[in-house]
Amino acid sequence: MSRTIALCFEYDGTAFCGSQWQTDGRSVQGELETAWRRLTGETLRWTFAGRTDAGVHALAQVAHCQSETRHSLDTLARALNALTAADLTIHEAWELPGNFHARFSARQRSYRYLLDISPSPSALLHERVLAVGLPLDIAAMAQALELLVGEHDFAAFTGAGQVGGTLRTCSAASIAPGELLGRPLVTVNLSANAFLKHMIRNIVGTLLLVGQGRLDVAGWAAVFASRDRRQAGPTAPPHGLYLETISYDPMFAPLEASTRWDGKTYWRTYQESSKAAR
Amino acid sequence: MSRTIALCFEYDGTAFCGSQWQTDGRSVQGELETAWRRLTGETLRWTFAGRTDAGVHALAQVAHCQSETRHSLDTLARALNALTAADLTIHEAWELPGNFHARFSARQRSYRYLLDISPSPSALLHERVLAVGLPLDIAAMAQALELLVGEHDFAAFTGAGQVGGTLRTCSAASIAPGELLGRPLVTVNLSANAFLKHMIRNIVGTLLLVGQGRLDVAGWAAVFASRDRRQAGPTAPPHGLYLETISYDPMFAPLEASTRWDGKTYWRTYQESSKAAR
Repeated sequence: MSRTIALCFEYDGTAFCGSQWQTDGRSVQGELETAWRRLTGETLRWTFAGRTDAGVHALAQVAHCQSETRHSLDTLARALNALTAADLTIHEAWELPGNFHARFSARQRSYRYLLDISPSPSALLHERVLAVGLPLDIAAMAQALELLVGEHDFAAFTGAGQVGGTLRTCSAASIAPGELLGRPLVTVNLSANAFLKHMIRNIVGTLLLVGQGRLDVAGWAAVFASRDRRQAGPTAPPHGLYLETISYDPMFAPLEASTRWDGKTYWRTYQESSKAAR
Repeated sequence: MSRTIALCFEYDGTAFCGSQWQTDGRSVQGELETAWRRLTGETLRWTFAGRTDAGVHALAQVAHCQSETRHSLDTLARALNALTAADLTIHEAWELPGNFHARFSARQRSYRYLLDISPSPSALLHERVLAVGLPLDIAAMAQALELLVGEHDFAAFTGAGQVGGTLRTCSAASIAPGELLGRPLVTVNLSANAFLKHMIRNIVGTLLLVGQGRLDVAGWAAVFASRDRRQAGPTAPPHGLYLETISYDPMFAPLEASTRWDGKTYWRTYQESSKAAR
């Protein structure tokens, strides 16, 4: 009896050649499939919710497969964690209806890009954030991002080799202050139904021109409207980018809640249960 | 004309054998002294404010030397950053009165220890936080920590080979919720005039017994009062520990403020200056 198994997992993209299997190089998919084969004896291909480039991180990537395994979901998550390297962690395993598809059932993807604005780069986070140094015009960057919200043709921000149309619906694009290990950060948050190849990195690379005063908001709007990749700025490096959340079709509601790894809610819930236990 | 130069710097302890120079192994001190020699031609020994073990991180370590260099402070910081690996970053260079001593002029050291309480360990932070899993009794841990505040004999928490007395004044010992890259964390904060060898790691290792319900607060108090290291718990691993702040004698006031790397203040100040610039 075949089961539809999905996993929610986190990875540090630094030592991976990307999420997708490649003939040479260590991919997240390869690491996962090898662990799965060792655990279940099954050689099969996992389908990922979203592709991430080499160096891009994921807080909650989702993938699914069809499997004959009889292991419990808890056993699957624990055993896979034991069989994969420390830079890939399985948060949870789910069993889902047969019509679930990690990629096609996804309704929204959220990413964050972390910019380190402090004058000296971070030794502890050099593979986790992009060091840009001062100053950045945050207000101008926020204005530029607002223009992305809605259904638009994002051709100006697509990478070479993009297949298919370039229309996407961006549901949120914002910039916010953040902090990581005592460092002041700027976080760029982007959510859309789907993203084009290199779209976020191209947006951030161009947005940095706005932040540095090398492109004004009107210029940004013109780049966006041109639908011409050559008008936009450089592709930002991968190591500041995180796949954060994938939201699914409401018919898979129990999963949707679980992929959202919300530290604050988690902590509050934990504290309450901890108090109740005393 | 000899100058007293001090540096404030951050490092990722993962690939270092510790802060202090050793005959074999890559130390923070060795990395810094090599860069200094390449920059200035001077072969000299830097004095560190505090020793950190292999794997322990520092957000703001301080070290000083006597130098004949004529480079500006800004040049020193920038050039050393260019000459050191990415896991060591110079935040600032200062010139101080000749009676300044990175270690002996320090009045207080603050450390934090990060515990990851989520059910699955973090792939992105596995060398930055200690994964302990649920559950921890936070209230009991807070009570236990309170008992450390004040002047006490910390012999129960000292490492083998501690030289000299074991009396120290602990000015703060607390536990607080935290968050890092979406993970719920527990942060243990400890400040004292000085710390014994392995003291924080031994405190945290014993504190985890309290958090896990294997030692109650009365038992913790008895361990502390015993002044016997054999009564205490295991030494916690180094990779959750961060040297956070070093506060200096008020006569070196300008330095004191600068070693405190406060992201929130920094961000606020930056936003205000950014607004004013428009």
